[in-house]
Amino acid sequence: MEYFQMTESTVEEYVKKIGMFANESVLATREVGDGNLNLVFIVKEEATGKSVVVKQALPYVRVVGESWPLSIDRTIFEANALEIQSKLAKGLVPEIYHRNDDLALIIMEDLSRLELMRHGMIKMKKYPKFPEHMSTFLADTLFYTSDLYMDSEDKKKMVAKFINTELCKITEDLIFTDPYFDAESNNINPALRPYLEEVFWKKQYLRLETAKLKYKFLTEAQSLIHGDLHTGSIFAGEEETVAFDTEFAFVGPSAFDVGKVIGNFLINYVSWSGKDEEPGKVKDYRDYLLDSINGYYNLFVKKFKANWDKDAKDVIAKVEGYQAHYMENIFRDALGFAAAVMIRRMHGLAHNLDVDGIENEEKRKDVQITILELAEEIMMDRYSFENIEAVTKLVKERIY
Amino acid sequence: MEYFQMTESTVEEYVKKIGMFANESVLATREVGDGNLNLVFIVKEEATGKSVVVKQALPYVRVVGESWPLSIDRTIFEANALEIQSKLAKGLVPEIYHRNDDLALIIMEDLSRLELMRHGMIKMKKYPKFPEHMSTFLADTLFYTSDLYMDSEDKKKMVAKFINTELCKITEDLIFTDPYFDAESNNINPALRPYLEEVFWKKQYLRLETAKLKYKFLTEAQSLIHGDLHTGSIFAGEEETVAFDTEFAFVGPSAFDVGKVIGNFLINYVSWSGKDEEPGKVKDYRDYLLDSINGYYNLFVKKFKANWDKDAKDVIAKVEGYQAHYMENIFRDALGFAAAVMIRRMHGLAHNLDVDGIENEEKRKDVQITILELAEEIMMDRYSFENIEAVTKLVKERIY
Repeated sequence: MEYFQMTESTVEEYVKKIGMFANESVLATREVGDGNLNLVFIVKEEATGKSVVVKQALPYVRVVGESWPLSIDRTIFEANALEIQSKLAKGLVPEIYHRNDDLALIIMEDLSRLELMRHGMIKMKKYPKFPEHMSTFLADTLFYTSDLYMDSEDKKKMVAKFINTELCKITEDLIFTDPYFDAESNNINPALRPYLEEVFWKKQYLRLETAKLKYKFLTEAQSLIHGDLHTGSIFAGEEETVAFDTEFAFVGPSAFDVGKVIGNFLINYVSWSGKDEEPGKVKDYRDYLLDSINGYYNLFVKKFKANWDKDAKDVIAKVEGYQAHYMENIFRDALGFAAAVMIRRMHGLAHNLDVDGIENEEKRKDVQITILELAEEIMMDRYSFENIEAVTKLVKERIY
Repeated sequence: MEYFQMTESTVEEYVKKIGMFANESVLATREVGDGNLNLVFIVKEEATGKSVVVKQALPYVRVVGESWPLSIDRTIFEANALEIQSKLAKGLVPEIYHRNDDLALIIMEDLSRLELMRHGMIKMKKYPKFPEHMSTFLADTLFYTSDLYMDSEDKKKMVAKFINTELCKITEDLIFTDPYFDAESNNINPALRPYLEEVFWKKQYLRLETAKLKYKFLTEAQSLIHGDLHTGSIFAGEEETVAFDTEFAFVGPSAFDVGKVIGNFLINYVSWSGKDEEPGKVKDYRDYLLDSINGYYNLFVKKFKANWDKDAKDVIAKVEGYQAHYMENIFRDALGFAAAVMIRRMHGLAHNLDVDGIENEEKRKDVQITILELAEEIMMDRYSFENIEAVTKLVKERIY
């Protein structure tokens, strides 16, 4: 079947043709994609209320337009990753019902009962199960796709299957390169520009640390990672947490996913400094955020080690001291990646609504500078923190 | 064409069929393969003296037999690597004339005018051009196949092309795993066994350092490496140095090739302690070996940096301080890999004739223990040496 761009009506035809809904069903379909890259349809059967999501890749970057072409093959990476993750972390990723690689299309579980975590966090919503769920998701997907567990031949075949050049390139450029100079792709708050020009872009030492992290991203094939695990890639509710949008998946540094979550929590944490919220509520929510980071990270380490002790196959994994060395590296790298992500979301191409929701340019600038400085401190001191509590303690000392 | 195992006569038919020699040519062909894995024929035209090498992979490990099957696809990796290396380092690898992937066959330059470097070194032969040549080979092949130079998409496609699972697995097992316990694959001098059991296999700290290196080998996709660059994979003469046997090639840690050369030189260095050679000649040859190591390594660094300064494409490569950081890592890792290789050649599956040529078991054992202890010291102190001269100085202090 040749690729064509779907519409509400061709989507309905398609889901009936493949037998997902009966021919006589009355369906309601709407396009709801608000991401940067794809079409997303929710198809609902009126009689039963049964619904599915149909996601189709467009042959260009939606947020920019046809001038930025992007291969629709990314759907293959997304579906391949989803198939692996749903085995390793059932219930923590959307269920996949159907894929059609020619049409660059995936039909999966409708998660509209849940809210995008970022949107919830902007409303000070708390997710008490998040540390438990996300630590399981990461401990299971990162451990069981690493050389610690996999046969080295299977692992290498997985590396080949996930050579995701185009989407990796986006990360390489937008996270690790462009924010460190006056690149065209940057999206800069005019009030922030003087700080970038006079201060931030002159920080050679920060650029050096980012270079080291970029190189890890380019060369360190540790685990099958989600690759874009920010709070806008997570649906959450009281009882559920679901990571989606795995099109950036590839075999890369495990700490990347771990750190991205932390970075996004810290962006939300600082963002309240630019908003008119009752101070007591802000303090309370900030305490909740730091507790979540501590809980999430410590549970991740505990579960990753438990998987290791139970299921590590490679002999090297059993050498005394190696586990500690490995977890130490993940900690340092995760802090580095967290910082890199905080930086790129301030003046790189893609921002976070947490901060961009601050309409006053000056106030927004102040928050952005605070986040850039906090990120810098975390990046530069990442080898000195004793544990995650030392990091969140620093955050609280700086901003509360 | 379906695979069949060649003989002298089918080789002659084949080279005529593809027009490499005229039908009426009188050829002399002999099988000369003494390696572990393949058939190697030298085909010579009697009238002109023109000759070529025909290398064919066998579907099993030659040195073990049909009980250890091995995919003939390794010829594809060898030919693919050779094609890239011959562009980057012309004259430092054999010229490739013809490949037939179905037959797992490569026809290439006959290098019998040169000697296997290991054989020459056992006879105290000196190779004055070696540091110059080998440093060029490594600086050029390792730099121009790294993310420092290559477009990140091309680099990733190269990673996929060189997913060389079977031959990597051999290295993972035989270098980084089996020598550290009483594995069946080990090939142990009976006189050495008590030392291994009572001392060597109890060194937990050494196993931990090797685990770190194994993990780098498994996950660090830096450059297209030769993958088996010992002195038995190098032909050399007064004026020429040629690296061959690239079937282990894959995208791995750059320092692996760099260190393997050093480790093989040091094995030869110590081996003289078990041989009846005139002390003056031994001292002289040892001085030559250490000078060669210093020269080779320093030239490698100089040329790698020169390539970098001239041709680095990625922005990260230009960040101040990043080159120094990168070269520092290569140095530390190269010393680790050198040590790992010295260890595996003492009691792992594959040995070096340098030491195995010592017929007396006791004398051989003494040399083996000296090498194991030297390797341990290099491995454990690899982060402390200031430069390569500090390493060779230590070697001379220990053994001279």
